[in-house]
Order: sequence, then C-alpha cells, then structure tokens
Amino acid sequence: MKTELLQKIKETNPVVLSITNFVTIADVANSLSAVGCSPIMSRDAREIPELVSLAGACEVNIGTLNQSDEDLILKTAAEANRQKKPLLLDPVAVAASAYRTDFVQKLLDNYHFDAIRANAGEMAALAGIAWQSKGVDAGEGDGDLGQIVEAVAKKYHTVAILTGEKDYLSDGQQVLCNQYGSPKLTKYVGTGDMLSAIVAGFLAIENDLESAYFACQLFSLVAEKTRSKGVFAWFNEFLDNLNEIDEEKLLNL
Amino acid sequence: MKTELLQKIKETNPVVLSITNFVTIADVANSLSAVGCSPIMSRDAREIPELVSLAGACEVNIGTLNQSDEDLILKTAAEANRQKKPLLLDPVAVAASAYRTDFVQKLLDNYHFDAIRANAGEMAALAGIAWQSKGVDAGEGDGDLGQIVEAVAKKYHTVAILTGEKDYLSDGQQVLCNQYGSPKLTKYVGTGDMLSAIVAGFLAIENDLESAYFACQLFSLVAEKTRSKGVFAWFNEFLDNLNEIDEEKLLNL
Amino acid sequence: MKTELLQKIKETNPVVLSITNFVTIADVANSLSAVGCSPIMSRDAREIPELVSLAGACEVNIGTLNQSDEDLILKTAAEANRQKKPLLLDPVAVAASAYRTDFVQKLLDNYHFDAIRANAGEMAALAGIAWQSKGVDAGEGDGDLGQIVEAVAKKYHTVAILTGEKDYLSDGQQVLCNQYGSPKLTKYVGTGDMLSAIVAGFLAIENDLESAYFACQLFSLVAEKTRSKGVFAWFNEFLDNLNEIDEEKLLNL
Repeated sequence: MKTELLQKIKETNPVVLSITNFVTIADVANSLSAVGCSPIMSRDAREIPELVSLAGACEVNIGTLNQSDEDLILKTAAEANRQKKPLLLDPVAVAASAYRTDFVQKLLDNYHFDAIRANAGEMAALAGIAWQSKGVDAGEGDGDLGQIVEAVAKKYHTVAILTGEKDYLSDGQQVLCNQYGSPKLTKYVGTGDMLSAIVAGFLAIENDLESAYFACQLFSLVAEKTRSKGVFAWFNEFLDNLNEIDEEKLLNL
Repeated sequence: MKTELLQKIKETNPVVLSITNFVTIADVANSLSAVGCSPIMSRDAREIPELVSLAGACEVNIGTLNQSDEDLILKTAAEANRQKKPLLLDPVAVAASAYRTDFVQKLLDNYHFDAIRANAGEMAALAGIAWQSKGVDAGEGDGDLGQIVEAVAKKYHTVAILTGEKDYLSDGQQVLCNQYGSPKLTKYVGTGDMLSAIVAGFLAIENDLESAYFACQLFSLVAEKTRSKGVFAWFNEFLDNLNEIDEEKLLNL
Repeated sequence: MKTELLQKIKETNPVVLSITNFVTIADVANSLSAVGCSPIMSRDAREIPELVSLAGACEVNIGTLNQSDEDLILKTAAEANRQKKPLLLDPVAVAASAYRTDFVQKLLDNYHFDAIRANAGEMAALAGIAWQSKGVDAGEGDGDLGQIVEAVAKKYHTVAILTGEKDYLSDGQQVLCNQYGSPKLTKYVGTGDMLSAIVAGFLAIENDLESAYFACQLFSLVAEKTRSKGVFAWFNEFLDNLNEIDEEKLLNL
C-alpha cells in the first residue's frame, strides 16, 4: 500500500472541484473534507475556468444529469483537459436511460478522463457487455470483472475502477484487485459518489493506477474497520475514521 | 397490522422514482434504502418514461417547486398514469403561495394520484377548509381531521394520508387512525418527505389504504421506539432501526 | 450575553426564508429548526413576495450561485427591503470567480443588507484588502480582522460578521470579538452557512449588532462544549445541544 500518499494528501490539502448530483452532494463534500481535501462545488459554467485553475483535480458525476449539468460537465472536462488537471468520471446509472447513455458517450468521445469509477453494471455498459442493471444499483451479471475493467481502460486510455464487494482496477496494462470491502458501503446511499470524489483527490497527489488503488484500499479498509453496528450511525463514525487516520494507524488496521 | 408487507418489501426491493425537493433529498434516498427500496432520482424530464418503467412506484414532492420541477412532475404523473404505476403526491406548503396552490390544482385536475400525503394545514387546503398554516409547518385549526381526509379522498378518488401527532387516512369509504407518533418526527426537517417516499414504496407492494396505513404505523412505531435522546443523533438510529426491523421484531415492539 | 434572546427565539419560532446553496441546504434547515426557527426554502422567484411576507428574516447565500439563484436572490433582496424584513448576505467564495465577485457587487450596490457573515478571506475581499484565499476556505492574510469588519460595516452600513477561530463583528461604531470557537466548526462542511442562517433567525427577534453577537456566541460556545470526539459524529450532538439549550443551561456552560 502506498501509505505515503495519505500523509501527502493531509499536508497538501488539494482543492477538488466536484460537479456532482443533488442527492449526495453534502456527503461528497464532507468525504473530501474528511480525507484531507478542500471541496469546491459549482452550479454555473461561467466560473468553471477559474475554479479548475484553483483545483488539484476535478470530478464529474451524472447522478442527477440535466441540461445545466451538461453545460457544467462539458466545460469542466474541456478546462481540465486544457489546463492538464486530473479528471475523473462517475457515470451513474449510465444504462438507465438513453439520455445518460448518449451524454456519457459524448463525453468519452470528446475528452480524456484520467479515471472512471463505476459499479459493475455501469462499467459493463461502458465495455459494451450485456448486464442486468437495476436503476442506480449494480445489478447482476456473469462477466469477468477483471476483463471488464481492462477492456474499458484500453478502450478509453483511462484508469478504470469498478467497485463493489471487491474492487477491480486497470490501466490497460495490469489489473489490480482490492479484496477489502464492507457490505455497509452498499446500503448507505452515495458511497460510490464519495469514493469517486476521494479518488479524484488522490489523483491530485499522484495521477496513476497506484494512487487510485490506494484510495480504494483506504476507503474500504477504513469502512470495514468502523465498528458501529447500524449502517446509518456507522456513516458518521466512518467519516471520523477517514478524518483521523494517518500512516501509522493505517498500517495497524 | 399487515406485517407481511414488511417481508415483501425487503424481498422485492422495489425501485421508487422520487422527484423530490433539494432540501431533504439525501434523507429521502436513505429512508427508501433503509426500508428496503431502491431509490432513483432524476432532474431531467427526457429520461422519465424510461425511469418510470424501471419503477415499482413514483412519488412527487413540491417542496422546492420551480419550472424544472414542474416539467419533471408533470411528466412523471403522466407516465405513471399511462404505465399504471402507483403515484403519490406530497403537496408541501401548498397554501404558502399562489404558485404552489395553482400547480397542485393543475396536477389534481389532470392526473390520478393513488395517494396524497400531507400535514394538517396542507390537507385542509386541499379540502378547501380554512386553516392557519405557517410556512412549511402544519399550523393550527379546528377542523375534524378524520372528516378532512375523508373529504379529500372522495374529492380526488385517492388515499388521503394526514400525518402529525396522530395520522388519519381515508380512501373515501373508511377512515383509519394511527395512534402512534413521535414528537421527534416534527423537529427533524423532512420526516414528512421521507414518509411520503416510504408510503410510495409500500404502494409498489400493494396499492391500497391498508398498505399506506401499514407504512405510517411502521414509520411512527419505529420512530417512537428509537431510544436516542436527542432529535438529531436519534435520526441515524431511527434509520438503522428501519433498516433492521423484520416481522418478528415489529410484532414485539 | 443577551441570553434572553434565546428564550424569545424558542417562544416566537420565527420563519426564516433561506435562499442557500445545494451542498449544505439540509444542514442549514436542520440548524434553523434546532435553534428554534421554522425554515422555509424556495427555488422559484414567483413565490418570493408571499414567502418574504411569512418570514421574520431572510438570508441569501451564493455557495452554488447560478442564473436561477441570481433571480431568487435579487427578488428576495428587493422584497426584504420593500417589506422591511431583516436581510443577511453570505458571500461564499466571493473572490473565487469574477462571476461571484460581480454578482455580490451588484447586490451591495442595489440593496441594503442588515448583516453580512463571511470568513476572513471573503470579508477581506469585500473590504478591498489583499488576501490569500483558497477556494471556499478562509485562506491566510495579515490584515487586522477588527479593522476589516469595521471597514465593511462602514462601507455598506451593515453589521459585518467575520467568523473563524475568533469572530469579529462591527456595526461601524464598535467592534466586538467573540473569543470562543471550536476547531471542529472548520472541518465539517457548511458550518458557516448554518451560522449565517441562525444569525438571520436572531435578527428576526432583534435586528442589531448585539443580537448577531449573541448568535455567534451561542453557536461557538455550544460547539465548543459538545463533547463527541470525532467531527462528524459530533455534528449531530451539536445540533441536539442547540435544540436543547435554554437560558439557564447557557449561563452554566
């Protein structure tokens, strides 16, 4: 584990520009704060160039996509590419409507994403593999998850991050598997959105597969070790643990 | 109590499409998740037909009504009626502005709602009875609450659900009263919004007065039995209790 | 400390109209509820005149400023001035983009604000003093904070409230300093937004410097005395303490 990234993110406190959905936006902001980043959100494309210049990394999330989000996301993608800032895509429920599918295709055709974080159903859709999705949930399918991330990574020259009971990551060269995981992460709404933002934060520190892999390990390991019994009471303790963890504590988990 | 509905909702895990307000949207999503539903939210009318087809039930909430919400809600109502999916209306603060009053009247004139959940002031407004409302709060009045729900149920051929210290429900034939209740439910913002979404979830299992009544009993009984002293710390424990309850536990509350 | 304001706000339960950002809107609503106010939010300018007439005070926050917010905020400012309701401005990240800077200038040129609450970087920008801001965070600078609030208060005939480790307030005549403070208030996202709304609530009770000062003392003192160790678990206990405090408890903190 590249535990030194943890100290770096706490010291550097990178600004992460997050264009995310209306449902989990508060938890995304607090997750970024907990892990050591400074979140900034925007709802107007006019200020995106200035905000991208303040940011160490950017992430875009289509959870509640609408016309205004389209403008914001396209502008953020264009500016992140132009200003050479790491850029992450979270294609929430990409297969649930033609509107989402078409917009994600437009994004992938026109901009470079340093990373894409998705659940199994969403990643399978990006890879063009049949999958039984169910709204925003992962759904079920028989595909080999390692092959799916490798295919997406190669197709879009990106770091593909498929998260679930286990996480699979690939940069098209190698495939990594994160064995940790917590069932509580699937019951609380928006933990995928939060992880996407946190991965973007780590890309601000080091923009590669290893860094994304460490973010996933940190997130799921801290989640697993958070002891509160109930999912919802657990969530606040989880954020506190993310806030308080350092290299030494992490190595002793 | 139709406790068998609880097992059915946990097993079936129905998708509930929720067009709700920006204030309590995260708590609405997590409430649905806690009770055993899969929430899906949308902010663009273009994808509504596909999302309604995924959903077991739909609910619309005018808490932060604006032009974009109008489009979303009208489309959701039209598609839910066309696709014969249960549809619930939460007319938040309907009497607080002519804008809200007129829009709700337009909805009720043009679409069929299987259920309407509101507080006393909102329900009195729908029944055309004078009431002292106060913003989004219930306010005070002297009307007979049972008569108010019966009048609304008959007028709009719906299940009318008035929630407060006690809940009154009617389908126009009979009036039911849920005696349980927790004063904490009025201090935490958005518990009405959450209950509306949860009722919609139960309508996906069984679309009638009994099912709505059970949802109200479950919600207020679990709220009452949640022991945390403070309202805000209590909330997370309440969601955890909603998440963990099963038929046997419910019968022993 | 004007502790009698606490009893008055709990008894009067003033409606506060809050036009705030999409990130922390739920916490703002619950903070208002906790302190004894009745929050009302809106997303459509058409209903603003009626909602201002219901309100004891209004507050506007540019945290996620966009075209729709511009309309809402301009209408709220105009109506609050016309209907002589106390009006507070929270100029979130005013220096982060020309879009925010220009809009805030337009507001200050055209409407009277009874109070402005901001962090050091934002307040320095309003005073026209150079400052090293960092996105939405306060940043660092060498200005004398007391002089900064006095300058803003005189320039805009307002009560200027600069919050941070210590809070500085001025009405242009005198400068007050609130020594209390809790480091947890800077890690949890949106505590500034919440304090802005709460100050507006106290302006509904008594519209002057003393009232704003008491709101800041109450907020930071209750925050400091809330014992939970972690920031995020602490937050709910903090809201509960705000909800449960009365004059006697406050004097014994």
